[in-house]
Amino acid sequence: MAREVSAKDYHDPAPVPIFHVVELSQWSFYKALIAEFIATLLFLYVTVLTVIGYKSHVSDDCGGLDHLGIAWAFGGMIFILAYCIADISYGHINPAVTFGCLLARKVSLIRAVMYMVAQCLGAISGAGIVKAFQKGYYERNGGGANMVSHGYSKGAGLGAEIIGTFVLVYTVFSATDPKRKARDSNALVLAPLSIGFAVFMVHLATIPITGTGINPARSFGAAVIYNKAEAWDDHWIFWVGPFIGATIAALYHRFVMSAGAA
Amino acid sequence: MAREVSAKDYHDPAPVPIFHVVELSQWSFYKALIAEFIATLLFLYVTVLTVIGYKSHVSDDCGGLDHLGIAWAFGGMIFILAYCIADISYGHINPAVTFGCLLARKVSLIRAVMYMVAQCLGAISGAGIVKAFQKGYYERNGGGANMVSHGYSKGAGLGAEIIGTFVLVYTVFSATDPKRKARDSNALVLAPLSIGFAVFMVHLATIPITGTGINPARSFGAAVIYNKAEAWDDHWIFWVGPFIGATIAALYHRFVMSAGAA
Amino acid sequence: MAREVSAKDYHDPAPVPIFHVVELSQWSFYKALIAEFIATLLFLYVTVLTVIGYKSHVSDDCGGLDHLGIAWAFGGMIFILAYCIADISYGHINPAVTFGCLLARKVSLIRAVMYMVAQCLGAISGAGIVKAFQKGYYERNGGGANMVSHGYSKGAGLGAEIIGTFVLVYTVFSATDPKRKARDSNALVLAPLSIGFAVFMVHLATIPITGTGINPARSFGAAVIYNKAEAWDDHWIFWVGPFIGATIAALYHRFVMSAGAA
Amino acid sequence: MAREVSAKDYHDPAPVPIFHVVELSQWSFYKALIAEFIATLLFLYVTVLTVIGYKSHVSDDCGGLDHLGIAWAFGGMIFILAYCIADISYGHINPAVTFGCLLARKVSLIRAVMYMVAQCLGAISGAGIVKAFQKGYYERNGGGANMVSHGYSKGAGLGAEIIGTFVLVYTVFSATDPKRKARDSNALVLAPLSIGFAVFMVHLATIPITGTGINPARSFGAAVIYNKAEAWDDHWIFWVGPFIGATIAALYHRFVMSAGAA
Repeated sequence: MAREVSAKDYHDPAPVPIFHVVELSQWSFYKALIAEFIATLLFLYVTVLTVIGYKSHVSDDCGGLDHLGIAWAFGGMIFILAYCIADISYGHINPAVTFGCLLARKVSLIRAVMYMVAQCLGAISGAGIVKAFQKGYYERNGGGANMVSHGYSKGAGLGAEIIGTFVLVYTVFSATDPKRKARDSNALVLAPLSIGFAVFMVHLATIPITGTGINPARSFGAAVIYNKAEAWDDHWIFWVGPFIGATIAALYHRFVMSAGAA
Repeated sequence: MAREVSAKDYHDPAPVPIFHVVELSQWSFYKALIAEFIATLLFLYVTVLTVIGYKSHVSDDCGGLDHLGIAWAFGGMIFILAYCIADISYGHINPAVTFGCLLARKVSLIRAVMYMVAQCLGAISGAGIVKAFQKGYYERNGGGANMVSHGYSKGAGLGAEIIGTFVLVYTVFSATDPKRKARDSNALVLAPLSIGFAVFMVHLATIPITGTGINPARSFGAAVIYNKAEAWDDHWIFWVGPFIGATIAALYHRFVMSAGAA
Repeated sequence: MAREVSAKDYHDPAPVPIFHVVELSQWSFYKALIAEFIATLLFLYVTVLTVIGYKSHVSDDCGGLDHLGIAWAFGGMIFILAYCIADISYGHINPAVTFGCLLARKVSLIRAVMYMVAQCLGAISGAGIVKAFQKGYYERNGGGANMVSHGYSKGAGLGAEIIGTFVLVYTVFSATDPKRKARDSNALVLAPLSIGFAVFMVHLATIPITGTGINPARSFGAAVIYNKAEAWDDHWIFWVGPFIGATIAALYHRFVMSAGAA
Repeated sequence: MAREVSAKDYHDPAPVPIFHVVELSQWSFYKALIAEFIATLLFLYVTVLTVIGYKSHVSDDCGGLDHLGIAWAFGGMIFILAYCIADISYGHINPAVTFGCLLARKVSLIRAVMYMVAQCLGAISGAGIVKAFQKGYYERNGGGANMVSHGYSKGAGLGAEIIGTFVLVYTVFSATDPKRKARDSNALVLAPLSIGFAVFMVHLATIPITGTGINPARSFGAAVIYNKAEAWDDHWIFWVGPFIGATIAALYHRFVMSAGAA
C-alpha cells in the first residue's frame, strides 16, 4: 500500500537492558502489571463465558456456528483490550507476546517475568469468576480448557500452536513497528484491529484441533479452574508451542523483515 | 503498541461544575438531549427488531446463531450512533456511561439527569415502534426484555451486569482519553469502533445469562413496552449492576490507570 | 468522543445551484456517472448472488444464519464501494442518498437525476448477470426482490423502510460532515466503515419484514429482473419509504443537528 | 465522502521499467519475495484449515454457516497479511494483483514473475502443512480446491472469477491510489481493511459457484496438494478468470477512473 516517498532519518530505539532495576521504583511499572492482570482477567471471563454459553459442538447440527462466535469473542476482546492499555503496558495480555518482546529487547527480563505472572493470575481469576457463576454450565465444552482433539496427533497440535502463535506475534511486531510510524504517522492506526483479527483468524482455523491456545496464560488459567487430567495431559503443548512460535516470529522480524535498509 | 517518544506537556481539562446553570441557556445542550433521545430510540428499534426476528433460542437447533447476530446488532448500533453524535452529546446513549462521566466530572449533574431522562424516553419509544409494527412477533423472545435466565442465580446476573458494564465503561474512558490524543493525534481514531466492539463482546458472553443489559435505558425501555411481571421482577439488577460497574470503571480509570505521570 | 478544544473558524460550503449547467461539460461528471453505474452493478451482483446462494429461510432450521451472512454482504459492499469511489462521485450508490444530498444542496438537480438513472441501470445489470449465471437458482428466495413478508402490514413495511433509510442517510450526513473534519482532521477516517455498518445493522433488523430495501435502485433492479407480480405489488413502498426517510434525515441534520453554533 | 477543498499539485510516479535489473542487486527485493512466500503460505494454511474444519456443505442442514466463517477466514487473512507486509512487498499475496500492478507499470516484469513464483510456492507449502496435520480430515470439502459446482456452467464459473477478481483488484487500485493520499493524508488509513473486505464479500457471493478463487496461487496450491482430476479439470478457469478480471480492473482504473483532472 501507500509508502511515503521520502523516508525520514530513522534510528531504532536502543534495546532495553536485560536487568532494568530503575523501573522497579516507577509507579508506571506497577500500573502496567495491574493493567495486564485486569486485561487478562477480562479476556478469560468473556471468552470462557462465550465458550460455555454455546451448545456442545459434538451434539449440535450447527457446530460451525460455535466456532465463529467463539473466534469473534477471542479476537474482539484482544482488539479492545490491546487498544485500551496500549499506552499503559503495550497491551501484551499474553506470555507469548511478552516472550517475543523480551527476545526483541523491547522489555527487560524483570518486566517480562512479572508480566507473565500477572497474566497467569489474571487468567485464573477470570476463569474462576465464570465457574463461580454457574458450576454446572461451566463444565460444558470442557470449561474452555485447551487439549488436542480426537483425530489429531500431539505433533499436529504442537504445530498448530507454533504456526498460530507465529501469525499473532508476527502481526504484533509488524503492526507496532516504530519504523513504519516514522515513515507515515497514520501507518499504525489499524494496529490493534489487525492484532485482534490475527487472534480471530487463528481461532477459526485451529479451534477444531486444540481449541486454540496461542496464549499460555489463557490455557493455564482455564486448566487450573477446570482441573481435570485431560486438560493437564496436553498442557505442555500450550507453553512450548507458543514460545517456539514467538521465537520464530521474533527472529523472522529481526533478521529477515527488518534487515538492511527498509 | 506505538508510544510517542516525547509526551507533550499535558494538563487535564478542569472538572465540569456539578451545577452548571449556564448550559441551560445554550442550544447545544438541548441539541445534545435530542441527539441522545433519537440515538437511544434507534438503538432499541434496531436491536429489539433483530431479537424478535430470529427464532426462539430454546426451540431452535441453532440457538447460538441468534446470539451472534443479536450481539452484532447491539455492538454495531453503538459503533455507528456513538460515531455520529460524538461531537453533539459525546455519544453516551446509556445511563451507565452518563453516570460514569458524572463521577469523572466530565458532565454536570443537571446534564447527567437530563441525558438519562432523554435516553429512557428514547428507549421506550424505540421498543414501542417495534411493538406497533407487529404485536404477535413482538412477544417472541420476550420482546428483548432483560431477565436472569433459568439456571443462573440473581447474584450471577448481577455480577454479569457489573463486569459487563465495567468492560464497556472502561473502554469508553480509555478510548476517549484526551491524554492519549495529546500524545498522538491518531491514537483515538478507532475509539467508536472499540466501544462498539466492547458492547458486541459483552453480548456474546452474557446473552445466555441475562440477555445482556449493561444499559439501564435499554432494559427499562424494553421492560415498559413488554410490561410483564417476569421482566419487572429482575429489573433492579439492570440499574444496580450497570451503575456499580460504571463506578468501578470510573474509579479504576481515575485512581489506577490515570494516576501518576503517564 | 474527543473534541478538539478550539474549533477553527468554519464556514459551510456554498449550496450547489439547482441547475448547474457547467458540470455537463466536465469529464469528472461523466466519470461520476460511470462510477455510480459500475458500483451499483457490483452491489447488486454480489448481494443477490449471496441471497440466492443460501438456503430458503422458511424451509431451513437455521434461518437466522441466512440473515447474518446476507446482512454482511449488503453492508460490506457499501463499505468498500463507498470507500473506492468517495473521491469520484461521493459514493452514493443509492437514489435515497442522492435525494438526501439534493435536499441538502450538496448536488445539483441534474446530477441527482442522472445519478439515479445510472444507479437504476447498474442495479438492473447486476441482477441480470446473476440470473444469466443460473436461472434456476436465481428464483430461490425471490431473486432478492423486496416485498412485505407475511405477518406484517404494508404500513409496517413502509415504516421499516422509512426508519431504516433514516438511519442510513443520517449516518451518511454525520460521517461526511465537513464541519467535523475542519475541527479534527482525523474525525472522518471511519466514515465509510460506519456507513457500511449502518446498512449492515438495518438489514439485521428488517430482513424479516421487507428483505430490506432502503435503496430504491436495489429494489428496482431486483424487481425488473425477477419480474413477478408479488415483487411489483409492493414496489411503491421501496421508493416512497426511502425518499421519506431521506427527507427526514436531511431535515433533522440541517435544522436540529447542524443548527446554531457547533 | 469528505474531499479536501484544494487539491495539491500532484504528479503520478514515473512508471517502473519493464526490466529493472538494478533491483536484482537489492536486499529489499529478496526480502519482498520472502514476505510474499511466507504470507501466501500463512494464507493457505489458515484458510484451508478453516475450510476442512467445518462440516460438509452438502450433508449439513446449516450449509450457509460454513460460508460465513470461511469467507471471514479468507478476507480476514488478507486484511492482516496485506497490512503487515505493505511496506515490504506492497502486500500482493495474489498473482492476479501482481498482474494488475504489472499492467499498471507499478512493478517490473522480473518482479512480477518472481512474485508469482514465490506466491505459488508459498501456497503449495501452506496447503501441504494442512495435509500433513491430518490427511483424513484434509480430504473433507475437497481440501479447499476450487472447482465449478454442480448446477453451474463453466461459463458461469469463469464469469464469477472475472467479476470477483475485478472487485478485488479495483479495490486494491482505489485503496492505494497515491493521488488520494496526496489530497488527504488520512484517506488511505482503511486501505488494508477495505481490501480484506473485498475478499470477504466475493467469497460470500461465489463460494456456492466455484469455492471462490480470485487468486491463482491459492487455487494452484490447493490443487497441487489435493491432486485429483476433478480439481485439475477446471483449473484453467482459476488462472484465466482472475487475469482477465485484473486486466479489466487495471484498464478501468487507468482509462476511466484516473483519466482527466481529478
